[in-house]
Amino acid sequence: MAVASQPDLSVVQFNEHGLVPAIAQDQATQKVLMVGYMNADTLRETLTTGRMVYWSRSRKERWAKGDTSGDRQWVREAYYDCDGDALLFVVEQEGNGACHTGNFSCFFQSLGSTPQ
Amino acid sequence: MAVASQPDLSVVQFNEHGLVPAIAQDQATQKVLMVGYMNADTLRETLTTGRMVYWSRSRKERWAKGDTSGDRQWVREAYYDCDGDALLFVVEQEGNGACHTGNFSCFFQSLGSTPQ
Repeated sequence: MAVASQPDLSVVQFNEHGLVPAIAQDQATQKVLMVGYMNADTLRETLTTGRMVYWSRSRKERWAKGDTSGDRQWVREAYYDCDGDALLFVVEQEGNGACHTGNFSCFFQSLGSTPQ
Repeated sequence: MAVASQPDLSVVQFNEHGLVPAIAQDQATQKVLMVGYMNADTLRETLTTGRMVYWSRSRKERWAKGDTSGDRQWVREAYYDCDGDALLFVVEQEGNGACHTGNFSCFFQSLGSTPQ
């Protein structure tokens, strides 16, 4: 696997905890899989290795998605938004899906009915 | 337009600022449009009216998307994630798009090249 040169992270606005939300969207189905958070180190690792690596806010540690479950995510496209405080990764989802519940997407529960 | 009954927000985990990130995804194209934030009031308003209403963190005020630009967003599906701390709305995007720059999606800038 080719390794990208050091990515320029100056366009990214990290929050007061040094984190930025990162959306993972499945390339094949276009489904939104999950929202995680990255700090500068895990974002740099994600961009240079092409594998999604988050920062776990609950465990306060680097979280290479799929190390335990095998459900790795591979970056196919990476974007930052207009004010630089959110990231979107279009990924190839390996294994059963993104969610620890066994669901393909973490967004599998409907939030009430809404007017149409 | 029908009005939904009072939605149950007890499944939503608001952060220390009383906010939850809300992803808007375009129903027609499946593109991720933007990430905004909602507090309990604007989330409730969103679910009962079917129109996306955010909380502006910069202006610290209710932000009914499209009031100025005409680029309103209408809720077609609403989900919360497995740990309840992120929301996904599949919307019908009115007008030119979601971004104040004139782009359809706020995620129009690529974040460096990544290994394939």
